[in-house]
Amino acid sequence: MNGVALPALSSRLRDLAKRQPAHTTLLGEFYRDEEVYRADLDRIWRTGWLFAAHSCELAAAGDFVTLEVGDDPLMVVRGEDGAARAFHNVCRHRGSIVCTTPHGHLGKRIVCPYHQWSYDLDGKLARATGMQEDLQKEDLGLHPVHLNECEGLIFISLAASPPPFDPAGAELGPVLKPQGLKRARVAKILDYRVAANWKLVWENNRECFHCVSNHPQYVKANFDHYNPDDVTPRIREQMVAMVKRAEAKWAACGLGTPRTETGLTPFPDAEKNIWFAGNRTPLVEGWVSESMDGKQVSTLMGEYPDPDVGTMRVRTLPNFWNHSSCDHGVTTRLLPGGAQTTLIRAYWLVDAQAVEGRDYDLVKMMPFWQLTSEQDWTICERQQQGVNSSAYLPGPYSTYKEYNVDSFIRWYLGRLVGTAAAAGVA
Amino acid sequence: MNGVALPALSSRLRDLAKRQPAHTTLLGEFYRDEEVYRADLDRIWRTGWLFAAHSCELAAAGDFVTLEVGDDPLMVVRGEDGAARAFHNVCRHRGSIVCTTPHGHLGKRIVCPYHQWSYDLDGKLARATGMQEDLQKEDLGLHPVHLNECEGLIFISLAASPPPFDPAGAELGPVLKPQGLKRARVAKILDYRVAANWKLVWENNRECFHCVSNHPQYVKANFDHYNPDDVTPRIREQMVAMVKRAEAKWAACGLGTPRTETGLTPFPDAEKNIWFAGNRTPLVEGWVSESMDGKQVSTLMGEYPDPDVGTMRVRTLPNFWNHSSCDHGVTTRLLPGGAQTTLIRAYWLVDAQAVEGRDYDLVKMMPFWQLTSEQDWTICERQQQGVNSSAYLPGPYSTYKEYNVDSFIRWYLGRLVGTAAAAGVA
Amino acid sequence: MNGVALPALSSRLRDLAKRQPAHTTLLGEFYRDEEVYRADLDRIWRTGWLFAAHSCELAAAGDFVTLEVGDDPLMVVRGEDGAARAFHNVCRHRGSIVCTTPHGHLGKRIVCPYHQWSYDLDGKLARATGMQEDLQKEDLGLHPVHLNECEGLIFISLAASPPPFDPAGAELGPVLKPQGLKRARVAKILDYRVAANWKLVWENNRECFHCVSNHPQYVKANFDHYNPDDVTPRIREQMVAMVKRAEAKWAACGLGTPRTETGLTPFPDAEKNIWFAGNRTPLVEGWVSESMDGKQVSTLMGEYPDPDVGTMRVRTLPNFWNHSSCDHGVTTRLLPGGAQTTLIRAYWLVDAQAVEGRDYDLVKMMPFWQLTSEQDWTICERQQQGVNSSAYLPGPYSTYKEYNVDSFIRWYLGRLVGTAAAAGVA
Repeated sequence: MNGVALPALSSRLRDLAKRQPAHTTLLGEFYRDEEVYRADLDRIWRTGWLFAAHSCELAAAGDFVTLEVGDDPLMVVRGEDGAARAFHNVCRHRGSIVCTTPHGHLGKRIVCPYHQWSYDLDGKLARATGMQEDLQKEDLGLHPVHLNECEGLIFISLAASPPPFDPAGAELGPVLKPQGLKRARVAKILDYRVAANWKLVWENNRECFHCVSNHPQYVKANFDHYNPDDVTPRIREQMVAMVKRAEAKWAACGLGTPRTETGLTPFPDAEKNIWFAGNRTPLVEGWVSESMDGKQVSTLMGEYPDPDVGTMRVRTLPNFWNHSSCDHGVTTRLLPGGAQTTLIRAYWLVDAQAVEGRDYDLVKMMPFWQLTSEQDWTICERQQQGVNSSAYLPGPYSTYKEYNVDSFIRWYLGRLVGTAAAAGVA
Repeated sequence: MNGVALPALSSRLRDLAKRQPAHTTLLGEFYRDEEVYRADLDRIWRTGWLFAAHSCELAAAGDFVTLEVGDDPLMVVRGEDGAARAFHNVCRHRGSIVCTTPHGHLGKRIVCPYHQWSYDLDGKLARATGMQEDLQKEDLGLHPVHLNECEGLIFISLAASPPPFDPAGAELGPVLKPQGLKRARVAKILDYRVAANWKLVWENNRECFHCVSNHPQYVKANFDHYNPDDVTPRIREQMVAMVKRAEAKWAACGLGTPRTETGLTPFPDAEKNIWFAGNRTPLVEGWVSESMDGKQVSTLMGEYPDPDVGTMRVRTLPNFWNHSSCDHGVTTRLLPGGAQTTLIRAYWLVDAQAVEGRDYDLVKMMPFWQLTSEQDWTICERQQQGVNSSAYLPGPYSTYKEYNVDSFIRWYLGRLVGTAAAAGVA
Repeated sequence: MNGVALPALSSRLRDLAKRQPAHTTLLGEFYRDEEVYRADLDRIWRTGWLFAAHSCELAAAGDFVTLEVGDDPLMVVRGEDGAARAFHNVCRHRGSIVCTTPHGHLGKRIVCPYHQWSYDLDGKLARATGMQEDLQKEDLGLHPVHLNECEGLIFISLAASPPPFDPAGAELGPVLKPQGLKRARVAKILDYRVAANWKLVWENNRECFHCVSNHPQYVKANFDHYNPDDVTPRIREQMVAMVKRAEAKWAACGLGTPRTETGLTPFPDAEKNIWFAGNRTPLVEGWVSESMDGKQVSTLMGEYPDPDVGTMRVRTLPNFWNHSSCDHGVTTRLLPGGAQTTLIRAYWLVDAQAVEGRDYDLVKMMPFWQLTSEQDWTICERQQQGVNSSAYLPGPYSTYKEYNVDSFIRWYLGRLVGTAAAAGVA
């Protein structure tokens, strides 16, 4: 956006937002319309903090990864000083992308392959052979992108003045630290092109109402599909006992305070614009890992004393969640690919020292989350087909089971309309 | 549409319609423009009666088929009471499509796979576990779609108040009845994605001027390429004799009154908005079936006393035609897939008792109409390429051979502009 | 366009042109926007002269080739009188394309496959069987397209009143003649769909700043990557000597006057709207052909006395360039395929008498230009990705090495805005 003030939300979109009923799914246009998509890019994706990569993907100076947010090509590079930095992956000479592969290793310079304009790893234009002597090199560095690295996760913001990252860091850091993502390794990446608006992917993520009939393997391991206010007394007792035992043990070994509820974490908070959350939650009796049979599928990660650590869970809007067991973690990253397309990457992470074949086997590690993920993408694509219908009308959310989806919708509308307000629009 | 009044035709489209010359092909925009396409969806596809399926595709209670009209996913389901019903295939909870396969069999309920909202086969919301107690279930049934079943054919209308179906039923019923489509079976389906506007497909269908040079197999069997007013006296005599003999025989065995012309049936009637027609017409001497050699290719269908019954033909605007011989029928169904895309399904039907390999062989049955159809799709795609040109201008129709195309164009413009008039636009 | 005056440039595009800085790459919208693309079609592609085909592709009467400029299907046909003519490939009856293959041979008539409307090879409607007697045949010929044939190259213009071709013919004719393209043969065609705006392809073509690091085989053979004003004295001396020797020799054998510079030919001239240029330029010492090792790869073409003729080079905006050595020529033709798509055809030409396997081997002839071309298409696609970024800003051109790119941009803006002025817009 180059520091330019956000244009006012169009009157068409303001009217649309006004017509949105409370406590229901969104009006169809929000899920399918090109103008809404562009507003989402401007007001959500180009203002907030986005998960970009894991620290371990760029371990050494000169390591880089690239990604695209909408039509914006970006790069994240580890500098000589050990700091990660993000830039628009756009040469200031003729506009070519500069890093042309998904990841790689640079020498001391970032060199554009078109005419060899060469930038230092901190983005400054260092050399531009063949150009006139009076070239204002100091004005021609790579356009910078804000970056925060937090316990092995790299977040970026395309905003000129991003919201503060510190509250997120303060909340997520202690939850993340024992997992040791800083000394992890990406064991596997799967990329998906999902024919659904990014908000449908989040609505799916924000409830486990659909889990029993759609995720048979997931519900064997987790309590999310239960809600504290609608379970049978027997299960409720069981959950309370689980939590109590886990709390005691985890406190003793310094794993931070888990949430006292085993069900879905209340998230996000629309009113306070809380876009991040982390917690630790017990798995069901006898499970130590989110694997098909609950058994450990790799060596322990991070600072874990033994496998009985439940799962660590972190999520940030608009594009990230991670579920980590004692032995492996799974990150999901969303990127917007169009009004009706979301580009999703799933990463499986293990301890940096774990060796495939010896310490873990992808065939055992991947199915739990690969199945769960792909089941969800199918669901989201079916919902997209339905909300495209001229007959579609917003439907009611369950007050028992879809309160988080409702919060997400309110958070989204607040960002969409609120940022307009912040930009001086009524 | 949800009962909302049709928005007025835009002034751009009204001006376009005014600029349209008489008795020529349409101005290029009508064949390629997105706004015209959306107006066609609103004013033609979402107001009239559409062929959806054959009764025999949903023979038993719980059988269903799905289809898409533009972006509207729809389902047709056979109820416990034997009646077929159509609904928007959109769950009233979160908007997912409910039936996720092209056809299938349900139990006593239509269950959404997302959160198990369960509808009776008549569309009423029966169960919504996990929802709040005060949910207004009676307001949350599947959005219904009008339906009429006529001698084995199922027609639907997305209109809030569709035009009366009875005149069509009265005309088509007696023509269809002897063919016995109610006790037929679909032997084969072929699906095509044709890169041509749906109106070009109809223009191609409404004349046989192109048949001699494009459909060598078709013209061996039929008289359509002759016009009563421009054939040689010898051929004319032959045609009159054929018709006379056929009329006498068919009247005797109760096959209804065939048209007295063997050439193309005059259809549609733009002035009276006649969008349906059916007739029986002789094949050439020695042919009893629209097969490559004119010989019978399956057992007799319906009430036919012997193979000498010519062909039964039925067509309804905007999306259906059927040619049936004594032994098999071929249905063509059009669905709009975009301004320059038509999704076409061809069905081959035989008697329900006919067994493949014993009573019929697809290799003998299919080529006649498969070739004719695919030759036409090629023609339509070539025409689309040409009408996309900036140099394209409407060309003159032959008054001898393209009067039906001219009628179709006038019918179309009448629907496009006329429905605007009905909605209060001058 | 049918002779209709060009509509005024929209105020949005006029504002965009006003915001364009001097001596930099274009603002992003010029490379990616649909409205700009349509204006480019109207104001550049449908007004100037376009390379369509080589004379040798339609050697005999009735030979034809087809091509598409944007959505305009066109044909070029050799007449009975030996003259080539171009037409819109759109039947005046129902609008079908008439010639349905990329090239072919007709009899004495151009016959539409739909209803057999038959045109003479000069485009006049000759027969329209089945039409009414009062059909105004004289008004229903194929829409003609202007054509000029120049020493083996066929140029067409879709304009109602094209700019004069004579200045181009006078400049290019003498340069082209000795190459003998009139008696050449197309040995090979490769087609590319390049994901880049056509102007990026030209910007790439108009400088050799990128050659050293991107075209290792090209810079071994050529001097283009040097600029007279920034090379070392030793290289400069070498270049001057080469040119001197070549000039003397070529003048002696009547090959016309080569440019006195070995570097990039200054082209185009924005101020004088010079859209064509031709010259002869030396190859490096020891090279007689643009082949991988510089050795001759086919028999001599045209009027060449021996292989030492350097390269003949011709280019015309907006869609053509040719590099020809003593033994083979390579033509590149651009056609617009969308705002971010260019359809590129590369042709390898040899003497008409050369026989594959005996006189030449495609495996030896093709790599030099196939590599160079494909390296450039990759570069252009990377640049398109970058200029699509919301962070992209126009960058400065090298005054030493990108003066031709700057000229091209000014030529382009002049055509875009200037033709608007010509149409009466301020």
